[in-house]
Amino acid sequence: MLSNTRLVDGETGFSIDFSGMRISDADLDSMGGKLAAAHEEMGKIEAGEVKNIDEGRKVTHFSDRAAYPGSELFADVERFAQAVASGEIKGSTGKKFDALLLNGIGGSALGPQLVQFAINGPAWNELSSEKRKGFLRIYFTDNTDTAGVADALKALDLETTLVLSVSKSGGTQETKNNMIAFEKLYADAGLDFAKHACAVTMEGSQLDQHSRANGWMKIFPMAESIGGRTSETAIVGHVPAALTGVDFAKILSGAVRMDGWTRVSDAKKNPAYLLAATWYVAGNGKGDRNMVIVPYSDRLLPMSRYLQQLVMESIGKETDRDGNIVHQGLNVFGNKGGTDAHAFIQQLNDGRDDFFATFIEVYKDAMDIEIGDGVFMGDYLHGFQAGLADALQSKGRQVIQMAMRTVDEENVGALIALYERAVAFYAELININAFHQPGVEAYKKASKKIIALLSEVNSKLPELAGSAGTAAELAEKAGVDNLAAFEGILAKAAENPSRPGNRVSREWSEGKKDWIYTVI
Amino acid sequence: MLSNTRLVDGETGFSIDFSGMRISDADLDSMGGKLAAAHEEMGKIEAGEVKNIDEGRKVTHFSDRAAYPGSELFADVERFAQAVASGEIKGSTGKKFDALLLNGIGGSALGPQLVQFAINGPAWNELSSEKRKGFLRIYFTDNTDTAGVADALKALDLETTLVLSVSKSGGTQETKNNMIAFEKLYADAGLDFAKHACAVTMEGSQLDQHSRANGWMKIFPMAESIGGRTSETAIVGHVPAALTGVDFAKILSGAVRMDGWTRVSDAKKNPAYLLAATWYVAGNGKGDRNMVIVPYSDRLLPMSRYLQQLVMESIGKETDRDGNIVHQGLNVFGNKGGTDAHAFIQQLNDGRDDFFATFIEVYKDAMDIEIGDGVFMGDYLHGFQAGLADALQSKGRQVIQMAMRTVDEENVGALIALYERAVAFYAELININAFHQPGVEAYKKASKKIIALLSEVNSKLPELAGSAGTAAELAEKAGVDNLAAFEGILAKAAENPSRPGNRVSREWSEGKKDWIYTVI
Repeated sequence: MLSNTRLVDGETGFSIDFSGMRISDADLDSMGGKLAAAHEEMGKIEAGEVKNIDEGRKVTHFSDRAAYPGSELFADVERFAQAVASGEIKGSTGKKFDALLLNGIGGSALGPQLVQFAINGPAWNELSSEKRKGFLRIYFTDNTDTAGVADALKALDLETTLVLSVSKSGGTQETKNNMIAFEKLYADAGLDFAKHACAVTMEGSQLDQHSRANGWMKIFPMAESIGGRTSETAIVGHVPAALTGVDFAKILSGAVRMDGWTRVSDAKKNPAYLLAATWYVAGNGKGDRNMVIVPYSDRLLPMSRYLQQLVMESIGKETDRDGNIVHQGLNVFGNKGGTDAHAFIQQLNDGRDDFFATFIEVYKDAMDIEIGDGVFMGDYLHGFQAGLADALQSKGRQVIQMAMRTVDEENVGALIALYERAVAFYAELININAFHQPGVEAYKKASKKIIALLSEVNSKLPELAGSAGTAAELAEKAGVDNLAAFEGILAKAAENPSRPGNRVSREWSEGKKDWIYTVI
Repeated sequence: MLSNTRLVDGETGFSIDFSGMRISDADLDSMGGKLAAAHEEMGKIEAGEVKNIDEGRKVTHFSDRAAYPGSELFADVERFAQAVASGEIKGSTGKKFDALLLNGIGGSALGPQLVQFAINGPAWNELSSEKRKGFLRIYFTDNTDTAGVADALKALDLETTLVLSVSKSGGTQETKNNMIAFEKLYADAGLDFAKHACAVTMEGSQLDQHSRANGWMKIFPMAESIGGRTSETAIVGHVPAALTGVDFAKILSGAVRMDGWTRVSDAKKNPAYLLAATWYVAGNGKGDRNMVIVPYSDRLLPMSRYLQQLVMESIGKETDRDGNIVHQGLNVFGNKGGTDAHAFIQQLNDGRDDFFATFIEVYKDAMDIEIGDGVFMGDYLHGFQAGLADALQSKGRQVIQMAMRTVDEENVGALIALYERAVAFYAELININAFHQPGVEAYKKASKKIIALLSEVNSKLPELAGSAGTAAELAEKAGVDNLAAFEGILAKAAENPSRPGNRVSREWSEGKKDWIYTVI
C-alpha cells in the first residue's frame, strides 16, 4: 500500500485514488533511481531539448499551452470564430455559416471529437442556431470511406458549411482525399470552394501551398513542434473548439493547472508520475495488463478512444532508445460506466486478471431526479461505480478511481494534460521515444505499394479486355506478382459497377471454388 | 497453413480469409475430437436442451429467428410501427410521433445501436420526417447518468416522443430509473405518459406489471428464452428497427442464411467454427491474444462495442462447466479502419504481439469519387486495408480478413449470426457456459449494498446535523463501518447542492490533507 493513496486538488476537487492498486511505498522506493532519471528527462522536454530524435523535433506542448492564450495566433482564432458566429464572415453566396466540417484524421480528429462530445454533448447538432448562439454544428470526415462523405452530406448544406482541413504535413492521404471530394462537390454545386475552405497546417506544407494557391479564406499556421496526438491544446484543438462555442481558454487553464501539479519532482505527490509508476508496476514495465478506461459519465464516452491513440501510439514501440528490440505496448479500451457493467465487466470480474481499470467519477448530476426515499438517479451512478470497485477488489482485481466535480472545459483540459504527462513519463521509465510513430510509416509505405499496384493494374486492364478467369490466371496474363493485392483490386473494381469506365465484373464459381473475373 | 484458407458465400459475396493466421490443417486435425464434441453440443442448443443450466434456460436464438417472421408477434410489431409512422397511432395530444427514446442497457441497447448506425447512419436524426418516411428519430438512455437524460431532452419534444423501455426482468435498475425520470418529466409537462410509453418485457415481469397497471399504449412480450446479448434478432432488435424504418425481415434473412452456413459439421467449411478454432489456437484456448476488430467502414464503427459484450460477457468466466477455476476471457477492442491506423495501429505493428486483428472490408463505395488517374477514394480504403494487412503480416502479426459487398440489413444480420455462433462454439471448446453472467450478479449485489448504505446514511444525517469533520470522524459518530462508501456518499451529496433537502457541504483542508464535511 502507498502511505498516501489519494491525491487531491482541493480547489478544483479533482482527485485520484490508488488504494485499489497493488503498489506500495516500497515499490516506489525501489524505482527511485528510475523515477528521478525520468523526472530529469521530463525537465529536458520542457526546456526544449530535441526529445524526438528520430524526427529531430522538440516536444513543447507542456510549456506552449501556458503561453498560447497570450499569443496573436490565439486572438486571431477567437476573432475569426466570433466573426463566423456573428455572420460577419459569410460563405460564397452571402449566407451565414451554420456548420463546420472538420476534415482530419488521428490527432486532428480524436481530440476535437472528445471535446465536442464532452462539452457540447451529443445533441449539439440538433440545437437551433439561436441555442448555439450562432456557433457551428460540427461533422467529421476522419477516414477515406465515401460513406462518411455521403453521411456528412445528408446533414450539411454546402452553402452554409465551412470546411476545415487539418493536416500538419498536408500529405495525409485520407485528409487529402476528403479535401478533393469536397472541392469537387462544391464545384458541382456551382459554389466557390475557396470561400468555404480553411486550413490548419504547417507553413510551407503541401496543404499550405495548395490552400494559398487556391485563395482559401483562412489558413492557420501549425507549429513544427506540435505532434498529432498531443495537439489538442494547440491550434488543432482551438479552431474547432472556437467555431463551436467551446471556451478554449478554459481548456487551456485546466491543462496548465494540471501541468503545475504534475511538474513536482516527488512522485508520491505527482498524479501523473504516480499514474505512470502504477502502470509500470501493474504491467511489469511491459504492459502485461490492459488499461481499461471506464468513465462514469455519458459525456466522457470518447475518452477511451482518445486515450487509445495517446497511449498506444506513444508506447507501442519495437525498439527502445538504445536500439534494443522491446516490443512495448499498453492496450487501452473501455466505454462508459455503469453501462459497461452490462457489457464486458463480467469478464473483468470473473475472467482473465490481465488488466487494471480506471474509473472516472463525476459528482455533479446534470439533473436532480429523485428515484425514491431521498435517493437520486445520480446516486445510483455513484453506487454502481463504488459497488463495481468493491466487487473487482474483492476478486483481487485492480482499480484506479478518479473523481471530478463536473465535465467542464477545465476538467477536460486537466484530463488531457494528466494523461499526456503520464504517457511521457511512462515512456521515460521504459526508455522509449514516445513521440514518433515508425510503425505508421511502415504501414503507409505498404499501402502506397498497393495504390501503385492499383494504377499499374488499371493501366493493364485494356490488355486484359475480353479475358475471363480466376485472379491467378489473370495475374499471370498481366504479369503481376502480388496475387492477393491483385485480386483485392479486381474485387474492388468488380463490386463497384457504377464507376465510370469500370471494366471488371466477377461471379463465384462453385465448381472452381473461386471467383471468375471478366474484363470488358 | 490451412489447405483452404478462404470461405466464400458466392451468392452474397460474404467471405472470410484465414491466410493471415497461424493455423494449419494439423491444428484442426489435432482438435478433431474437441471440434466434434463442440459441434454435438451446438446441436443440443438448437434442439432446445437447457444449455444455460445456471439459469435453467434454453438458448434458442439460432432457431427462433427462422420462425419469427411468420409469427403473429412479428406481424404485430410491423403493424404497430407502420401505424406510428403513418400517424394513425398518435401521442397524448393527438400529434404524430416523431422520435423514439429507447430506454435500455446492455443487450437492449448495443444491438439496436449497431443496427441504427449501420443501416440508418449517423445523420438519420437530422433528416426531415419526409426523408425518414415518417419513421422515428432515435435516441438512447443506456445508463443512470442524468446527463444522458438531459442530452436526450435537448433533442426531444416530449409531445411527439415514444418512450420504449426494454428490460426482460424489468428489474434492471438503470432502465427503471430512466423510466421513472420520464414518467416525472411527462407528468411535469402535463402529458399523459401512458399514451407515450411502450415496453418490451417478459410476461409477468416487474415492468410488465407496472406497464399494465398504468395502461401503457403497447407491451410486446419477450420470451423467457431470449438472452440479453443474443437478443438483437428477436423482439428486442425488432421493435426499434421497425419504428425507424429498418427492414428487420432482411436482418433476419441475413442471419438465417448465415445460420445455414454455420450449421455444417465440417469445421473447415464452417466460418463460425473456423473463426472459433482460430481464436482458440491464437490464444492457446485461454484468450492470450486480444481480438482487435477493425471494420474498414464508417458505418460499422459500433461493431467492436457490440462484440465486446457478445464475446467478453459470454467468454469471461471464472469457472468451467465442471467447476474448475479457469478465469477465461477474450478481450475485444477496436474502432474502424483506416482511421485506427492513425491511432493504435502503431502498437499493433511494432509493439506487443498480443493480439490478432479482424478486418472487415466493404467493397461497394457509397459514392464514386475519383481522386486521380482512375483511382477512386474507396480504392484508398482498400489499399490501406491491404497495406496494413501486409505490414502486420511482415512483422509476424496475425490477421483475419472478412469482406462483404455492402453494409446492408442482410450483411449486418449475417455478422451478428456469425459471431453468435462462433462465440457459442468457442465456449464449447473451452467448456464454459456462454449464456450466464454470474460476475454481473456479484456486481449488482455489491452495488445494492452501497445503495442500501446510502439510504442508511440519509436517515442518519439528521443526527449529524451541526457536525463538521472528516469522513472518518463523521463515520465514527454515525456508527458506519464502510468508510470509503460513506465518504463517497457524502461527497456525492456535497457536490450536488442543488438537490432539494441537501444537508451536506465540504471543503478541502490543506492542513489535514482531507475533506471536511459539514452537515446542516
